[in-house]
Amino acid sequence: MSKIIWLIVLSGLAFVLGYNLNSNSPTNIESTSNISTKTFNWKMVTTWPPNFPIFQEGIVQMAKDIEVMSNGKLKIQVFAGGELIPSLQTFDAVSQGTVEMGHGAAYYWAGKVPEAQFMSSVPFGMTTKGMNAWLYFGGGLELWQEIYEPFNVIPFPAGNTGIQMGGWFNKKINSIDDLKGLKMRIPGIGGKVLAKAGGTPILLAGGEVYTALERGTIDATEWVGPFHDYRLGLNRAAKYYYYPGWHEPGTSFELIVNTEAWEELPAYLQKIVEIATYSVNQRIYSEMEVRNIETLKEIEDKIEILAFPAEVLSKLKYLTQISLDEEAEKNPKFKKVYHAYKKFQQDNAAWSAISTDAYGKL
Amino acid sequence: MSKIIWLIVLSGLAFVLGYNLNSNSPTNIESTSNISTKTFNWKMVTTWPPNFPIFQEGIVQMAKDIEVMSNGKLKIQVFAGGELIPSLQTFDAVSQGTVEMGHGAAYYWAGKVPEAQFMSSVPFGMTTKGMNAWLYFGGGLELWQEIYEPFNVIPFPAGNTGIQMGGWFNKKINSIDDLKGLKMRIPGIGGKVLAKAGGTPILLAGGEVYTALERGTIDATEWVGPFHDYRLGLNRAAKYYYYPGWHEPGTSFELIVNTEAWEELPAYLQKIVEIATYSVNQRIYSEMEVRNIETLKEIEDKIEILAFPAEVLSKLKYLTQISLDEEAEKNPKFKKVYHAYKKFQQDNAAWSAISTDAYGKL
Repeated sequence: MSKIIWLIVLSGLAFVLGYNLNSNSPTNIESTSNISTKTFNWKMVTTWPPNFPIFQEGIVQMAKDIEVMSNGKLKIQVFAGGELIPSLQTFDAVSQGTVEMGHGAAYYWAGKVPEAQFMSSVPFGMTTKGMNAWLYFGGGLELWQEIYEPFNVIPFPAGNTGIQMGGWFNKKINSIDDLKGLKMRIPGIGGKVLAKAGGTPILLAGGEVYTALERGTIDATEWVGPFHDYRLGLNRAAKYYYYPGWHEPGTSFELIVNTEAWEELPAYLQKIVEIATYSVNQRIYSEMEVRNIETLKEIEDKIEILAFPAEVLSKLKYLTQISLDEEAEKNPKFKKVYHAYKKFQQDNAAWSAISTDAYGKL
Repeated sequence: MSKIIWLIVLSGLAFVLGYNLNSNSPTNIESTSNISTKTFNWKMVTTWPPNFPIFQEGIVQMAKDIEVMSNGKLKIQVFAGGELIPSLQTFDAVSQGTVEMGHGAAYYWAGKVPEAQFMSSVPFGMTTKGMNAWLYFGGGLELWQEIYEPFNVIPFPAGNTGIQMGGWFNKKINSIDDLKGLKMRIPGIGGKVLAKAGGTPILLAGGEVYTALERGTIDATEWVGPFHDYRLGLNRAAKYYYYPGWHEPGTSFELIVNTEAWEELPAYLQKIVEIATYSVNQRIYSEMEVRNIETLKEIEDKIEILAFPAEVLSKLKYLTQISLDEEAEKNPKFKKVYHAYKKFQQDNAAWSAISTDAYGKL
């Protein structure tokens, strides 16, 4: 799921209105002799709509926790997408120091940093368990820091959606041919893969998805999972819910911090921020799981859940590899991250096969 | 895995030597007018051997992080099992205020608080994902707090092993009858289940497992997973490695804090401790995954990995339900937690079936 179009609309609006990203300057440039008594007033912008459940709520909670932990020495004012700057300018705003912090997902910056997509999610990639293992102890985070370093941005894993569902469809998908001509709201690499399968990926803002699906302007849409999908009413707009998800198996969010702002923080506040990112990473994921569990239980008798046939999934997997290989051919930075990711994913798969996957079959 | 016997030996030794758990008093009883400038010097005892990889190392790192985050206002000296008190007296020591904090797993106190076992792991229970979801957002942690409240102890989830392997065997297990007479090192409810299947659970300290298995004193043993097992040399002591694990599918660790000590902390230090437990919970799990991935890759060609037949697992599952039901009949507190756990596990299973489990089969 992404709210890319919604964000693009806001971005364009802001551009038309002449919004100047650089009109603010950081508020914490002055220094004091006693670093531990200094108060920092920071701003964070996010890519989420105001009050967006779990994601925006989760990062607002993290900001509150940081203020409490720092005994009021680090205050972070959080702005949802569009409240201060357009959502999709979050990365640039942090990079340029307009704000000190941002929260979103790395694939939103695919146009600028294509290889960063591996730090959020790629089709047929790793689930949350593997993503966190790779990022924290498998070399992923170091690669991520390297990728963002030229942009003056420091990344931290900060939330995970778990597996996103494959989407709502107005017809059954019995073979790969059923994807031909299918108009589906699906962004990113997943959309590219659908296009390779003969379908038409459509970009639509969240607010438009229900009506488009219900009126037949699109034939299908993915969004997030049972909880967020139900809130959008998608169960009433389409006939079938397909599973499992294949295009975003464990989307990781990021907290990004401007490098100069980071370096101005005393060590204890840096540590408070770092440790707080672990908490939001764990909390958003666990809350996603619980809300999806609850919602599924509530709606499972009212919807029809089907599986994509193995042949369809196998073809989509093949087309994903083609897509990623093509990008790697063009872009050495992408290739480097892709290979590191793929190697860890393979090793992780061998272990998962005899642990979680085997246990899941009991 | 547990190091129960090793711990019992140390406990006994300490008892013989007349070790007095109550000989120390908390160091932070005095109060100052400016609470935020006060320094707290706390002690933490753990159930792990000194320098035990990932577990002891992880909690030592958390203590260091807390000291940095608090700008030196909360210093925690960490003692491994036996360094200050016997490992299995960790809960009592925290309960009585001999030390302010402890780190271990709730099933170590099964003799005193049987229902707490659900807060660590039970056979055929939830994996790490489900445990964290239940504890943080599904009502589990509130139940846990309620269980420990009479003991003056506040619990926090603080680490997870992931799925533990089913163990090393010197013969193939082709049917449930092959478990009859089998001498296996396996503690806790898993051991009770083995006994119901006609086997003989043996309690052995970690240091004795290798020799016992290699010499045929025992026929089989479980320990943790590839990483810890390999360090113990179990791959050289037994012929077969069976999977998947069934008896500890996602063992959660706990940080426990003495209630009075907790209440003396100012709010900002309480929040620092709370948020730090999320970090150690995430870090221990992710590090376990990565070390298991690396070790499996290194040894997979040198060992034989087999699966328990479906009939064996199905019988073990049945015997687990019998064991838990029996305990619930005798103990209303156990029954209450068991039912809450089971309900969440069932709902969680419905969601996992169409998300992680389905994806794991792709």
